[in-house]
Amino acid sequence: PLAYAEHNESEEDARFRKVFKQLAGEDMEVSPKELMDILNKIISKHAALKTDGFSIESCRSMVAVMDSDSTGKLGFHEFKYLWDNIKKWQAMYLNFDRDGSGLISGDELPGAFRAAGFPLNDQLCKMIVRRYSDDSGNLDFDNYIGCLVRLDAMCRAFKTLDKDNNGTIKVNVKEWLQLTMYS
Amino acid sequence: PLAYAEHNESEEDARFRKVFKQLAGEDMEVSPKELMDILNKIISKHAALKTDGFSIESCRSMVAVMDSDSTGKLGFHEFKYLWDNIKKWQAMYLNFDRDGSGLISGDELPGAFRAAGFPLNDQLCKMIVRRYSDDSGNLDFDNYIGCLVRLDAMCRAFKTLDKDNNGTIKVNVKEWLQLTMYS
Repeated sequence: PLAYAEHNESEEDARFRKVFKQLAGEDMEVSPKELMDILNKIISKHAALKTDGFSIESCRSMVAVMDSDSTGKLGFHEFKYLWDNIKKWQAMYLNFDRDGSGLISGDELPGAFRAAGFPLNDQLCKMIVRRYSDDSGNLDFDNYIGCLVRLDAMCRAFKTLDKDNNGTIKVNVKEWLQLTMYS
Repeated sequence: PLAYAEHNESEEDARFRKVFKQLAGEDMEVSPKELMDILNKIISKHAALKTDGFSIESCRSMVAVMDSDSTGKLGFHEFKYLWDNIKKWQAMYLNFDRDGSGLISGDELPGAFRAAGFPLNDQLCKMIVRRYSDDSGNLDFDNYIGCLVRLDAMCRAFKTLDKDNNGTIKVNVKEWLQLTMYS
């Protein structure tokens, strides 16, 4: 089945698969440590992105929220989804950093969220700034990405759980702990 | 009201308030950075606890899950609750590290969870090990504490939301994002 999938994938996927093979190593899955090394290599080439680097803790959390098949690592499609988003969000980061500070301020964040497809109300934006910003209320690049990866995953999780699409979900304690502890 | 509270608190609280005043600084709230400095100072005095230190990311997450009044920092009672738990869980860490490795292995973790009042099933334990352990499947002290702080907070959040105590909770998307993004 893998060979079949490889044979029938788009040209873009085929190109990305080559990159993925190099990044993921022999087991063909990207671990939190591998993700951290990849992301930190990228930011070292982009001086306009202020960041103190991706920590192993934040990469563990990102892998967990993206790891739909619960292997503890990211397979090809999980990683490609994350990668495409990071590229898109990176372009937005530079766009929404209107004062060219290399950081996204609390004021600039709601616009970036809207552009990313997450029109959050004021209260949620403030709460996210409280969680992800530094003492001056700014998000650097790693916090911005960590925050969006989580926001995207939590919105998808909600949609999946809201089977009858009525805007509320019902979960028991086991489901609740699975969702909140593996994230 | 503050003076009244101070006047009527127990001797233990009064003792702890003195320590708290020193730790929290002028604003009388403990920020993630202050929490990190306090925890890293403590572990530097305990050679038996293996750890690579508490990261700012993990301290931000701990403050968020403990921050019931949404100030972004921990007030006296929030901090005291956390502090008492950390002391208790630290004693357990040394107890459950049966092979004296300074780490809690995946096998030792279910026992530690049970002792801490969280009798989790096998699947949940495995998932938590996947999220919080290093490549060898061990939890060092900072990951162990980060994990228990979150587990305790998520169990309390569930109980609060389960108003009719029927074992399931119903949340809308706004509540869901508040709970999962500020954590």
